[in-house]
Amino acid sequence: MQITWLGHSGFRIEIEDAVLLIDPWLTGNPSFPQERRAEAIDGATHICLTHGHGDHASDARKIGAELDIPIACIHEIAEIWGDGTLGFGKGGTLDLNGAKVTMVNATHSSSLDFGDSGPRYAGGEAGFMIAGDSHVIYVSGDTDIMADMDWMGDYHKPDIGILACGGHFTMDMDRAAYAAKRYFDFKTVIPCHFGTFDLLAQSVEPLAAALPGVDVRTPKVLEPMTF
Amino acid sequence: MQITWLGHSGFRIEIEDAVLLIDPWLTGNPSFPQERRAEAIDGATHICLTHGHGDHASDARKIGAELDIPIACIHEIAEIWGDGTLGFGKGGTLDLNGAKVTMVNATHSSSLDFGDSGPRYAGGEAGFMIAGDSHVIYVSGDTDIMADMDWMGDYHKPDIGILACGGHFTMDMDRAAYAAKRYFDFKTVIPCHFGTFDLLAQSVEPLAAALPGVDVRTPKVLEPMTF
Amino acid sequence: MQITWLGHSGFRIEIEDAVLLIDPWLTGNPSFPQERRAEAIDGATHICLTHGHGDHASDARKIGAELDIPIACIHEIAEIWGDGTLGFGKGGTLDLNGAKVTMVNATHSSSLDFGDSGPRYAGGEAGFMIAGDSHVIYVSGDTDIMADMDWMGDYHKPDIGILACGGHFTMDMDRAAYAAKRYFDFKTVIPCHFGTFDLLAQSVEPLAAALPGVDVRTPKVLEPMTF
Repeated sequence: MQITWLGHSGFRIEIEDAVLLIDPWLTGNPSFPQERRAEAIDGATHICLTHGHGDHASDARKIGAELDIPIACIHEIAEIWGDGTLGFGKGGTLDLNGAKVTMVNATHSSSLDFGDSGPRYAGGEAGFMIAGDSHVIYVSGDTDIMADMDWMGDYHKPDIGILACGGHFTMDMDRAAYAAKRYFDFKTVIPCHFGTFDLLAQSVEPLAAALPGVDVRTPKVLEPMTF
Repeated sequence: MQITWLGHSGFRIEIEDAVLLIDPWLTGNPSFPQERRAEAIDGATHICLTHGHGDHASDARKIGAELDIPIACIHEIAEIWGDGTLGFGKGGTLDLNGAKVTMVNATHSSSLDFGDSGPRYAGGEAGFMIAGDSHVIYVSGDTDIMADMDWMGDYHKPDIGILACGGHFTMDMDRAAYAAKRYFDFKTVIPCHFGTFDLLAQSVEPLAAALPGVDVRTPKVLEPMTF
Repeated sequence: MQITWLGHSGFRIEIEDAVLLIDPWLTGNPSFPQERRAEAIDGATHICLTHGHGDHASDARKIGAELDIPIACIHEIAEIWGDGTLGFGKGGTLDLNGAKVTMVNATHSSSLDFGDSGPRYAGGEAGFMIAGDSHVIYVSGDTDIMADMDWMGDYHKPDIGILACGGHFTMDMDRAAYAAKRYFDFKTVIPCHFGTFDLLAQSVEPLAAALPGVDVRTPKVLEPMTF
């Protein structure tokens, strides 16, 4: 099983017979080297979106059409976009080439940007629990700490946490450390949604310091992590 | 006190001096025998909507107008529909002919379908606690497991749980069993939002097996359950 | 540090070098004496909005433009209004003249009223934790009881709680008492969002009776409380 950061909240996860692109925002992402786009999406089988904001969802339809692969997303985004989507809801599980992807709660907001007419409701914001190859990966999506993380930890028992840690719009490193310590028993934590802009500047050090015994990674764009 | 399933998430609840139609989706509901529509809505005093999705809310205005009864729903749906609605919010309680109906949280999404212009924000998704005739009924609405179920169970002490159990868009039987076991002390559990479509095919058996000592019903459409 | 009620959910908070106007709904607010508008907003440095409903947000742009001060609010409201806003998200913290304002979760709904075209999605509903001058103030915003209040209490340790207590759309006094007792260790509680309309008529007495040892205030409009 392999997890590769695409910068910001984007990840390529190779698990079971699936190659999942999570929130693959490449175009305009300052952390992503545009010239390496082809290898980032090569062979992907599905796109999974946590919510509709542009820094997560704005490349999804283009990549989906290019590779002819479906976009797994909440009901409203599926309704708005139509063809090429797999709509589901919080608590629901999709089997994507053997990977079991469950949509779970997040506390943030979610809209699609319609340019001149502004943001439009895109269903609730979400996270994912992705199970396969003897691992369970928690993709927090954009969220603050949640009491729901308690049952999520107990019910899904994720060993890998991909957590939004950049502050300003989501948890920062300190809040993510609190969430990880209180609600989960992660072996590995991968911070994301940080460093993309000045606004999201954060050092991974306090997160690592707060989680002794946990393998807290400083992900590097397009360098695969194997589990 | 009588609870009658109308298929999917629709229920007719006769409690105190009220006859409540909860999410009464009849037109186009594959589980509902259209020729028995008249008896399903006969004498109803109020409609209560958990959220705006078509499989819950698409018949509400028609039935409301036909019977000249109000629709209790969240503020935004009341604003959009105007006349004939009783808008309230999460934490608020309405006295409907002696039945106390409190709106509580759910984690899902909520929109009204505006056809060509697509889904439109319809306020937050919700559930209900309905108290009367010495019972408290928890209507979960479409939701996943929630940490909020902990205080809901403690504060409202429902003895009957009507739980969304069909998976894909909401909890499945296994998640509903976890929620019921961990957060509530139900005497009776009535699963719903299952069996309507192939996508929601679920057997009640694992729910019953997971809740020994709880009267887990397999509801039959239009067969009243008396409490 | 000074907290002054402006009626309904409006507060003027003088903390560190900031004068924050929280949900300052003055125009049309039956609890607010219109002739005292100037003193209510005098010297304000920022406006903070919990959500988009008219009884919270309808005066914000006018006051913001008049005083040339920014409006701190969730991403979607900032997108819709543009200039003069500071958009952030749940879990994010702004430093407003030394006051640290963190956006936290609420369970309600949020829309902006677009008149003939009706309510429009305005991002998620929120509350605030405001830290400064050796105090932490929890502004609940419109919300029901939340399991999230547990980690909020533990993480932020607020000593002052400004709680929505009017019922119908939010917690009533009894629910607010439950929330305060179970999840927080407040020294002072200030109820709000009550008394504005007949629908929100509530006595503070049951809240005070339920919280022995807590200084439960009955706020008076435009009478500063000093901490």
